[in-house]
Amino acid sequence: MRAMIRELTPYHVKNAEGYTLLDNNENFLNLLQDIDLNVIKQNVAINRYPSDNVDRLVAAYAAYVGLPAENVLAANGSDEWIALICQFALDPTDTMMVVSPDFSMYEKNGRLLGATVQSIALNEDFSLPLQTMLQEIEQWRPKCLFLSNPCNPTGRRYEVSDLDTLAIAMANVGGYFVVDEAYIEFAGGSYTEKAIRNENVIVLRTASKALGMAGLRLGFLIANRELINDILRIKPPYNVNQMSAVIGAAILSQPGLLRESLKRQKRQIEQLKVILEEFSSRHKKVQIYPSHTNFFLMETPDALDLYQFLNRHKIRVRAFGDGRLRHCLRISAGSETELTALKKSLEEWSLSACDRQAN
Amino acid sequence: MRAMIRELTPYHVKNAEGYTLLDNNENFLNLLQDIDLNVIKQNVAINRYPSDNVDRLVAAYAAYVGLPAENVLAANGSDEWIALICQFALDPTDTMMVVSPDFSMYEKNGRLLGATVQSIALNEDFSLPLQTMLQEIEQWRPKCLFLSNPCNPTGRRYEVSDLDTLAIAMANVGGYFVVDEAYIEFAGGSYTEKAIRNENVIVLRTASKALGMAGLRLGFLIANRELINDILRIKPPYNVNQMSAVIGAAILSQPGLLRESLKRQKRQIEQLKVILEEFSSRHKKVQIYPSHTNFFLMETPDALDLYQFLNRHKIRVRAFGDGRLRHCLRISAGSETELTALKKSLEEWSLSACDRQAN
Repeated sequence: MRAMIRELTPYHVKNAEGYTLLDNNENFLNLLQDIDLNVIKQNVAINRYPSDNVDRLVAAYAAYVGLPAENVLAANGSDEWIALICQFALDPTDTMMVVSPDFSMYEKNGRLLGATVQSIALNEDFSLPLQTMLQEIEQWRPKCLFLSNPCNPTGRRYEVSDLDTLAIAMANVGGYFVVDEAYIEFAGGSYTEKAIRNENVIVLRTASKALGMAGLRLGFLIANRELINDILRIKPPYNVNQMSAVIGAAILSQPGLLRESLKRQKRQIEQLKVILEEFSSRHKKVQIYPSHTNFFLMETPDALDLYQFLNRHKIRVRAFGDGRLRHCLRISAGSETELTALKKSLEEWSLSACDRQAN
Repeated sequence: MRAMIRELTPYHVKNAEGYTLLDNNENFLNLLQDIDLNVIKQNVAINRYPSDNVDRLVAAYAAYVGLPAENVLAANGSDEWIALICQFALDPTDTMMVVSPDFSMYEKNGRLLGATVQSIALNEDFSLPLQTMLQEIEQWRPKCLFLSNPCNPTGRRYEVSDLDTLAIAMANVGGYFVVDEAYIEFAGGSYTEKAIRNENVIVLRTASKALGMAGLRLGFLIANRELINDILRIKPPYNVNQMSAVIGAAILSQPGLLRESLKRQKRQIEQLKVILEEFSSRHKKVQIYPSHTNFFLMETPDALDLYQFLNRHKIRVRAFGDGRLRHCLRISAGSETELTALKKSLEEWSLSACDRQAN
């Protein structure tokens, strides 16, 4: 084992049975119920390596987002794209840049390759420290800059003009600008058109959030055709399995189904916002950050206690250990039933907090 | 893009439609036909990240091979394990060792990480050059040695005593010995018991060959519990998708189905052997190598011509470009229909070759 592997901690997937899951920003609707698996069965030879079915998946995703299929590649979730882009861009003597807080897998993959990771703290309100970033880019000349937009875990959407500035700065030092649009369906303002025109811009998309296919592991990379040809040098040939490809294509080919699903999610996001604002109005130390995603970041000195309380009531939300987010919880939108359970538990916590203050 | 990426060539997946596929050593039986997808549908929430379903898959595979589940991990095909083990073991200043010919992905992954790859040529009959390997291991102190057993693409099974010698030699230099048992169901003599007892031995297994699930992308790693705990530091948490996990577990839970499938495959391997020996008896320059797998390696100066002839007749077999195997074709066992097509085309080629000699 390499010495640096010792510094990495395993990611333990928690048992989900019996829990209300508001911790992973998933779609609460299971679209598999709308798919005829008997038709799927006729189109899949599971004994054969994936080939044509994956081409059809890519074509279906490209049609869904309105881009040419030649600008799109599929992988086993965005997670695989993050790993592959790091392998593509980073020698161990190179530097990558991330902001903090942001999705932790960017930094983990860079470190795994032995690259130097420059992490720039976001401003206190989670906006981009643009001038600092430009200076650091010039100084460190990173081979890649990863940024989720809207940002996971803060929920904030960045200005397109800021993204343009960063894209140019990264082009000037010969590095890639990778915009992870995992939550773009909730925000609008996609950067894909820029990716297609610029050889140093990559957009990542996922089927795991708004599209409701986290269990299928489908991530998409959108880039300029020349860049795609180079990335193909390291893309594993059989990284997307046939069942996910065929079911994914079937769902993507039903825009009405996806539109209705997005509408229902947006309604629940509004509902979650109301619940959290109510909660916040009862506790003056609770802050809810604005969000362009299907989750909200809440900050409170009681984050740990609230997390444990909700967990005892079989509700999972996301906590963050140390650092800037140590007093934050991230809570995803859920179904009516799930949000009712959340609302009830938050009210109970408020009452118990009130009791504690009285004593 | 890193400079070394330019040296890598993309792996183009060929369109399979309308072809008899004898090039990828797949099972010719589609076991999905024996699975009730309506039951599957009830057990999969595709909107959720995979968790419990993957645990059940690992338990089903462990039960199938008769090992404790704690010694087994699953990934997105053996391909992912090869990449992850290289990342786990190799700093860019390290050396990895492979033999040649062997499965090309070992070397490709080592090179991608910037490691030095020492490739040791097999003997002329494809047996292991054991003394040479021991000397090279002592000299280069590789951090890992990959070996497929039985060997893809030669079909040869190595002596267990030779594997033991290599495992000890690798332990002496602090490196891992990785035995890829992709075809072990056809050969017997698995090394898994040694893997469980030794902290430097890893066995890789796949569901893509005898088990007939290439389209699901399921690869398994078998190792000592301590080693598993360390490998978990770098295993992506959600690398196996839910559909593959649930369908894979359903198939693995039907040992009768798998036994019958293996019996039918072995019958067709015998059939393929008869066809190729007949062919070889007509052409004195054609050699068929002994095999403990579901494919045969054939050597003939006319390999390229025969490959193109079969391709024109819509039959895909595997050719190998330059190097030791430049005059070889690898041909997988197929169904009755597929092998009848192969036999007919081989007979036609023999007639045309006879004509050419007469002119």
